[in-house]
Amino acid sequence: MKDKFKILVAGGDMRQLYCAVKLSSEYDTYVTGFSEDVIPEKMNVKKHDDKNNILYDSVVLPVPPLDEKGMITAPFSENGLKPEKIKRLLKDDAVIFAGKSDRKLEKAFEGFEITDYMEREELSLKNAIPTAEGAVAIAINEIPVTLNGLRVLIVGLGRIGTALAEILKGFGADITASVRNAKGTAKARIIGIKSVCTDKMDTDFPLVFNTVPEMIFDRDLLQKFGSETLFIDLASKPGGIDFESASELGKKVVWALGIPGKTAPITSGEFIAETIINILSESGDDR
Amino acid sequence: MKDKFKILVAGGDMRQLYCAVKLSSEYDTYVTGFSEDVIPEKMNVKKHDDKNNILYDSVVLPVPPLDEKGMITAPFSENGLKPEKIKRLLKDDAVIFAGKSDRKLEKAFEGFEITDYMEREELSLKNAIPTAEGAVAIAINEIPVTLNGLRVLIVGLGRIGTALAEILKGFGADITASVRNAKGTAKARIIGIKSVCTDKMDTDFPLVFNTVPEMIFDRDLLQKFGSETLFIDLASKPGGIDFESASELGKKVVWALGIPGKTAPITSGEFIAETIINILSESGDDR
Amino acid sequence: MKDKFKILVAGGDMRQLYCAVKLSSEYDTYVTGFSEDVIPEKMNVKKHDDKNNILYDSVVLPVPPLDEKGMITAPFSENGLKPEKIKRLLKDDAVIFAGKSDRKLEKAFEGFEITDYMEREELSLKNAIPTAEGAVAIAINEIPVTLNGLRVLIVGLGRIGTALAEILKGFGADITASVRNAKGTAKARIIGIKSVCTDKMDTDFPLVFNTVPEMIFDRDLLQKFGSETLFIDLASKPGGIDFESASELGKKVVWALGIPGKTAPITSGEFIAETIINILSESGDDR
Amino acid sequence: MKDKFKILVAGGDMRQLYCAVKLSSEYDTYVTGFSEDVIPEKMNVKKHDDKNNILYDSVVLPVPPLDEKGMITAPFSENGLKPEKIKRLLKDDAVIFAGKSDRKLEKAFEGFEITDYMEREELSLKNAIPTAEGAVAIAINEIPVTLNGLRVLIVGLGRIGTALAEILKGFGADITASVRNAKGTAKARIIGIKSVCTDKMDTDFPLVFNTVPEMIFDRDLLQKFGSETLFIDLASKPGGIDFESASELGKKVVWALGIPGKTAPITSGEFIAETIINILSESGDDR
Repeated sequence: MKDKFKILVAGGDMRQLYCAVKLSSEYDTYVTGFSEDVIPEKMNVKKHDDKNNILYDSVVLPVPPLDEKGMITAPFSENGLKPEKIKRLLKDDAVIFAGKSDRKLEKAFEGFEITDYMEREELSLKNAIPTAEGAVAIAINEIPVTLNGLRVLIVGLGRIGTALAEILKGFGADITASVRNAKGTAKARIIGIKSVCTDKMDTDFPLVFNTVPEMIFDRDLLQKFGSETLFIDLASKPGGIDFESASELGKKVVWALGIPGKTAPITSGEFIAETIINILSESGDDR
Repeated sequence: MKDKFKILVAGGDMRQLYCAVKLSSEYDTYVTGFSEDVIPEKMNVKKHDDKNNILYDSVVLPVPPLDEKGMITAPFSENGLKPEKIKRLLKDDAVIFAGKSDRKLEKAFEGFEITDYMEREELSLKNAIPTAEGAVAIAINEIPVTLNGLRVLIVGLGRIGTALAEILKGFGADITASVRNAKGTAKARIIGIKSVCTDKMDTDFPLVFNTVPEMIFDRDLLQKFGSETLFIDLASKPGGIDFESASELGKKVVWALGIPGKTAPITSGEFIAETIINILSESGDDR
Repeated sequence: MKDKFKILVAGGDMRQLYCAVKLSSEYDTYVTGFSEDVIPEKMNVKKHDDKNNILYDSVVLPVPPLDEKGMITAPFSENGLKPEKIKRLLKDDAVIFAGKSDRKLEKAFEGFEITDYMEREELSLKNAIPTAEGAVAIAINEIPVTLNGLRVLIVGLGRIGTALAEILKGFGADITASVRNAKGTAKARIIGIKSVCTDKMDTDFPLVFNTVPEMIFDRDLLQKFGSETLFIDLASKPGGIDFESASELGKKVVWALGIPGKTAPITSGEFIAETIINILSESGDDR
Repeated sequence: MKDKFKILVAGGDMRQLYCAVKLSSEYDTYVTGFSEDVIPEKMNVKKHDDKNNILYDSVVLPVPPLDEKGMITAPFSENGLKPEKIKRLLKDDAVIFAGKSDRKLEKAFEGFEITDYMEREELSLKNAIPTAEGAVAIAINEIPVTLNGLRVLIVGLGRIGTALAEILKGFGADITASVRNAKGTAKARIIGIKSVCTDKMDTDFPLVFNTVPEMIFDRDLLQKFGSETLFIDLASKPGGIDFESASELGKKVVWALGIPGKTAPITSGEFIAETIINILSESGDDR
């Protein structure tokens, strides 16, 4: 056991805790940045203790890794978590994992190699599932009609759009995907839904999910939709709906970001862990 | 127009208002028991006015029709709605529609024939849809994992169980129906899910929907489920889960009643209207 | 073992052989009426031999049990199977199982109680599955277009109609069920398909499955369909399509009967066995 | 009309005829290489006639364009179709469309630009639909059990694998996709099926669809499958199953190539036409 790969999960929300639980199945895993009372009693994770003088082979930082003060995002920590402190706990060749890495992080962990697990396609693909599930729950709760028989527009037929389509088919919704070209049309046919070309978009839809991170719903297009239409924007910032115009026009819009961590913290924590395990096992770093 | 069938929707929540809107497409429809501010401006319903001296051919009462004080259930009315007042607005041979009629109501409207629209199978069937949708939204919001890949137990494969199965298939859940006999097993196969006999129920399920209005989950059975299992009871009172034992054992139970009116007031209001239109058209009373 | 319930499977096609294999798991099972070469080498069934002087507790006859000459239906027998011969092999209180029993059979087995396993609802329900699968294969092979995106009409939403709908949803077909009343409409909604009232049937469908054993497609209605429409009649005789008119009008009709035994002899043989096992176990006759 | 883009569909099977019908909606379309009796009376296509002295803007050749004798593939032609003859009917800058172009074709049409429509991703995607439908019909007809509840393995989760999965879900099959990596696993989850890594493939499957054009099922792997397993190979040549070993081991294999043209000639002819229309409209060549 002495030689087992040591990994520290530092900061983050419940999702990171569940990530740590899953990592424990493969590595000698510790957590820091969580106050005692948020860690469920039965949960099987070890808490980092400075007295043990452990130097870690790897650290897993949350999504996003740093808050606006430059501290490690740690909403469940009482005293905050400084990057410098974490740095001191790492071996020289330690692997840094972080979700949505940026320059600030690179500077804070200068000299270390940083791997952004959120950029792994396997994770984006998997996260499409909790994202779509959460988005559908929002729709059920927000609109006063059933999804059954409802005309629903899904803009974009990538991973989230596909996941949404699969779920909405089960509801018996009347689904149309807005796609860019003949390939998109063909994809829609394969999964058994209708499609329309984005630039000839029909607007008679009481429910619209946007998954494309480009300005598609500008003032002009928004105006063509009925006053009852609910827009749920799932595209990463800046999203695909003109915020200001939507407000001014009194459109109903839900900006739904970070759904996986909220709607399914266990599953999405496990997804992060699985991704990290795959990265480490591919690189051989965990041996 | 003089001879058009006149119908009054008296009391109830938003659902009854939407029921009135839908009834307007067929009959000369009026509403009472709603204060001005709850009726959306654009909504196309006429308000009953005593000055008009209309005698109605029919009245539609809500679900349940009377509250514990014997008044017509009218949460959006400022002054309350007395049954006697409504009675005076009716023709002698008027048809009374009510949801979940009982002796109290029969007494209040003595001399009139009462039809309980909630007892119509077409309405129960239709209401299975919003019930299942709402139940699934509860599940997504309450459990910290995705429905995708989740082992889900549906107890009973009647209308609500079937509706749940259809929806959950879209989520990619791993669905088992608990059924009573070989017919139930065959039904499960037709809709493409697994089944187990209720008296040999497996208990390794993090999510259980009960749709059977019989005491199935008694103390003994509840104890066999894991501490993380979420039970959602959709069976009408008294439901199928032993309330006291569940509390004592610390089980997670959601008693989910009256979902259609909450999760999809427009759709379920329209369902009631469609049912009433069908009843009247079958009987010929609306001519 | 001496006391094990002895059952004889007499006559029939491959389906009855597979029925015998399945019955072997519960009872001491023998077959007769199959020439050596049709019984697969590895198949685990015992052949009846007159020398053993066994008296059977039960006999399983095929569907239909007798041919037009009054012999037991036994297409794989070299010499034919006389009812009298089978009768002599039975105990006095033996249970006779037969598919689609009739007066001729009752006379041939006078003095014995006959149970028609084809009348068991669990078997009808299960048989809906191979029937629907076989019908869909016929459709794929017969029509020159894909089911994907195709407007398909399913007449009747009972067990076969439901099984068809479930399968065709996977193909991404554009499904409408023709139903009789508001209950049918509600059922269609629950499984996520469209519906139309049978007496207001739309006729713009290139593919029609009929499952209702009543004359629905008379000359008048047939004429309203296009010349390319393929009708697949799955209703038991006399079926729901006017044979003569269809021929005269040059309509494309496939009368698809007895699909389960043809398309899935193993599965449907097992279904018969399961039904017999359930009947015997309920009655306690097998003890 | 004088200036309308003139296109000639030369040779091929019914699929090319239906392609011509669809092309007629956009262009002045003619066919050659079809004897009178194969062209349905009502079909709306013009036959090429040498007397008209038309020079075509484009020609559409079949899949494959040439037969082993170097003639244009024209099974429905009485006298054969020589490339030289077609060449003489073309304008100097005519566009040549062909399915699965090769050197022989390039030589025969030297000086012309050839576009291989089978290489367009939109067409491959669309063709996945008739391919999957036809493959499923083969499975239903070939195996003696129902797809319902059957353990089915789909090797590869590209367009054909995805199309198969969507269809088989409707049948209630128990589907596992064999995938190469974590991305494949994630894709499988999104569409709601199980997955296994190709190099750790389980072999307990009575039905296997291969969609990967690489030698996966070598002698070793084939031997691990049961004698009853049916393999359906949908991968383009050389396919993914070791032909010789499979024969020697007595494995049941169906090599299913060119399904779209066989199972759905109208749909797949239209797909080719749509692809050609898209190519021409993108390039602007049709103006």
